[in-house]
Amino acid sequence: MKNFTSVHDVPDIPKLVNEAVEIKKYPLQNTTLGTHKTLGLIFLNPSLRTRMSTQKAAYNLGMNVIVMNMDKDSWALETREGVIMDGDKAEHAKEAVAVMGEYCDIIGVRSFPGLKDKEADYREEMLNIFLKYVGIPVVSLESATRHPLQSLADLVTIEELKKTKKPKIVLSWALHIKALPQAVPNSFAEWMLAAGHDLTITHPAGHELSEDFTRGAIIEYDQSKALADADFVYVKNWSSFNDYGAVSNRFPDWTFDGKKHSLTNEAKVMHCLPVRRNVVISDEILDGTHSVVIQQAGNRVFAAQAVLQTMLEEME
Amino acid sequence: MKNFTSVHDVPDIPKLVNEAVEIKKYPLQNTTLGTHKTLGLIFLNPSLRTRMSTQKAAYNLGMNVIVMNMDKDSWALETREGVIMDGDKAEHAKEAVAVMGEYCDIIGVRSFPGLKDKEADYREEMLNIFLKYVGIPVVSLESATRHPLQSLADLVTIEELKKTKKPKIVLSWALHIKALPQAVPNSFAEWMLAAGHDLTITHPAGHELSEDFTRGAIIEYDQSKALADADFVYVKNWSSFNDYGAVSNRFPDWTFDGKKHSLTNEAKVMHCLPVRRNVVISDEILDGTHSVVIQQAGNRVFAAQAVLQTMLEEME
Amino acid sequence: MKNFTSVHDVPDIPKLVNEAVEIKKYPLQNTTLGTHKTLGLIFLNPSLRTRMSTQKAAYNLGMNVIVMNMDKDSWALETREGVIMDGDKAEHAKEAVAVMGEYCDIIGVRSFPGLKDKEADYREEMLNIFLKYVGIPVVSLESATRHPLQSLADLVTIEELKKTKKPKIVLSWALHIKALPQAVPNSFAEWMLAAGHDLTITHPAGHELSEDFTRGAIIEYDQSKALADADFVYVKNWSSFNDYGAVSNRFPDWTFDGKKHSLTNEAKVMHCLPVRRNVVISDEILDGTHSVVIQQAGNRVFAAQAVLQTMLEEME
Repeated sequence: MKNFTSVHDVPDIPKLVNEAVEIKKYPLQNTTLGTHKTLGLIFLNPSLRTRMSTQKAAYNLGMNVIVMNMDKDSWALETREGVIMDGDKAEHAKEAVAVMGEYCDIIGVRSFPGLKDKEADYREEMLNIFLKYVGIPVVSLESATRHPLQSLADLVTIEELKKTKKPKIVLSWALHIKALPQAVPNSFAEWMLAAGHDLTITHPAGHELSEDFTRGAIIEYDQSKALADADFVYVKNWSSFNDYGAVSNRFPDWTFDGKKHSLTNEAKVMHCLPVRRNVVISDEILDGTHSVVIQQAGNRVFAAQAVLQTMLEEME
Repeated sequence: MKNFTSVHDVPDIPKLVNEAVEIKKYPLQNTTLGTHKTLGLIFLNPSLRTRMSTQKAAYNLGMNVIVMNMDKDSWALETREGVIMDGDKAEHAKEAVAVMGEYCDIIGVRSFPGLKDKEADYREEMLNIFLKYVGIPVVSLESATRHPLQSLADLVTIEELKKTKKPKIVLSWALHIKALPQAVPNSFAEWMLAAGHDLTITHPAGHELSEDFTRGAIIEYDQSKALADADFVYVKNWSSFNDYGAVSNRFPDWTFDGKKHSLTNEAKVMHCLPVRRNVVISDEILDGTHSVVIQQAGNRVFAAQAVLQTMLEEME
Repeated sequence: MKNFTSVHDVPDIPKLVNEAVEIKKYPLQNTTLGTHKTLGLIFLNPSLRTRMSTQKAAYNLGMNVIVMNMDKDSWALETREGVIMDGDKAEHAKEAVAVMGEYCDIIGVRSFPGLKDKEADYREEMLNIFLKYVGIPVVSLESATRHPLQSLADLVTIEELKKTKKPKIVLSWALHIKALPQAVPNSFAEWMLAAGHDLTITHPAGHELSEDFTRGAIIEYDQSKALADADFVYVKNWSSFNDYGAVSNRFPDWTFDGKKHSLTNEAKVMHCLPVRRNVVISDEILDGTHSVVIQQAGNRVFAAQAVLQTMLEEME
């Protein structure tokens, strides 16, 4: 596994999931694998879970960690080719990334979409500059269109909790007040489908995700039908893909609450966090017994550790 | 010692002070106690001494450290119950804190008061969310009403320097230009009294601290009388507790200078830092031989290390 | 080597360069030299290369690292003597620095010039407060007038690449849009001259550097003449020293491009980064085979490691 930027980088999904589950049981079985190796964590955007869980994973493997908040610790990066750099960007990403590659053994990068220019975002400009110029393995800490460490942790969580071989998994759009990326739902969809799960996606008309990620899923516009008999409901807002970046607050009844939950098969309720209470999901659900959001977040350590461990083993 | 948020969490004060003194002599006697354990340091407010000294203490015990600047590295947290989160707070502290608990073995948190709403501040909302939801031991890095790591370091400093069993200790209000919390004086008072020391507090009328912290101290409004024969003077500004958060610059003669020092018994002059020179304390005193402010700051490492060591030992 | 703030602190330049070259071959030969020692990295200004490479160097020696972004992690520092601190600076550098010295074994500090007051900048106020009050070895991470870690890495790079004992080295001014410090060119000049190299400096009239740094170099105002037969060209903008801090965009033809390069002896092109493409240096050069800017940046690790190693050895 040279890089970890999407499910397509993973040669054997069940093997990686199993490794994460094993690491959760025995997190300190490989504490010298990463000795004298350095993980660089480059944040072009804020982070809590990813920042902390990936550091923890690296420490469990004996790695050193260098955290770099671009923009706050240094300066903004140019990504366009051939431009005369006489504006507000002091450095081109090409140089910055090549330099980072000199100082680290594995690099993680977080780079959100701008949500203005669909083609630019889905081209994954920043991530691709890392892949092209850094010269060391790259772990996505959430890119413009995907969040694979989250999806791996989600898959681990489902494997831990599922009661049947083929649970009904529903990805349900939810209300929000801001324009959020499609990265988490894109990634969740492609991971569930690649892992062979049945996935139903429900959302208001106009909130279709790109078919590149959802091909093979059932799209059900009637949320009540989608939720019927669901074993897992992944609740998540995303801004429009078609009317790119548009926010919809025209759908106030898409807050996930106890009434909606009662339509399911006592479904486990999932969310990647941060979650706005009583907008996305009600207090009643988040404080109740069906929420598994903290377990999901906890599994981020073991997902990251499985990825880093695989990369370190291949370096030996 | 499950948590360390006030002197009331300490089962045996002299024992903890002794441990800090021993650690100062031999700081590297327990360098494997914290191996593979992670300390999370969560800053909702700025920090220099606490940030650096607590990291150093953790390293001396072999721990890993994850530092998290909330607001700068991630986003602001909601603390109110039952609110519809459609404002500027992207995550509820309940989730954020529970997640942090998944990634760390001990957590430190700094959360200053707003100084607008006395009841809210003295209720210690943020600290209590950590205590309720984090699921691992909590170390206060200064909360709305207390700064126990500072007070422990202060007590260690006094033990190192006292020439008699019962030195006269004076806490003296000082001039300032901004509204400062009552946390340091509250904490200093309750630690000195709990340690069995005689404490005199002097301040202008209107700057009384809460009796919950000062019960047992002598309150002396006449600063000259208070300073007479003092062996230690802890100089510190705090905003009004009664007229909550009010700043007083009506008392220009409360800057602590050589003339005031001459009233004392060659007192050691203490301050928690940062200190505004020639507003709170004069250059003459800070650059003179009676100031022990750097020694106090240095002792922050050993105070933190004694606390972390006690917690780690109880985990074994 | 008590401190590392300029070439004048280095007792034996060839020895230090050799050590860096050896460390590059075997970076992990001294992984326990820094065990239980802490490096503090204090940034009063942004940093990417220095931040990451110095951390990496410290980890290679087994040190712990505490990174502190002044202003962002804490607050701004006063440097003036005798001032009544009733303004926006909450702490005097004297206290802050003395306290940092309590928590670290070696301290690095970055403090850029203001570029308003030449005398204040060239007096190196902040660096000197560190040297006076910190009580432990100081490594400059770029001060108002010098960047010695960069210059050492530059010298290592030249030693690696030179084909003759006395290559022709040219420091060439370049166009920019902002007022940049003279620290890098000052430092490069004094290191090259101290190492016994022949140095030619070329710049438009009005961009003379201080003779304190360039004494012994050839100053050639005609860039074409300067570039003739050059083996190394160090391209760098700096604001005016005489008309202190002034920016010149009156010299658009000072962008270093292929045409200028063709005047040289297939010169290696150097820059300390970050570099504004097509303002300072053209894409053609930066993406071509003569650019060694990434190699220079990579050598920052070994330069820092040689300095830290020397300091740690002298502590034993």
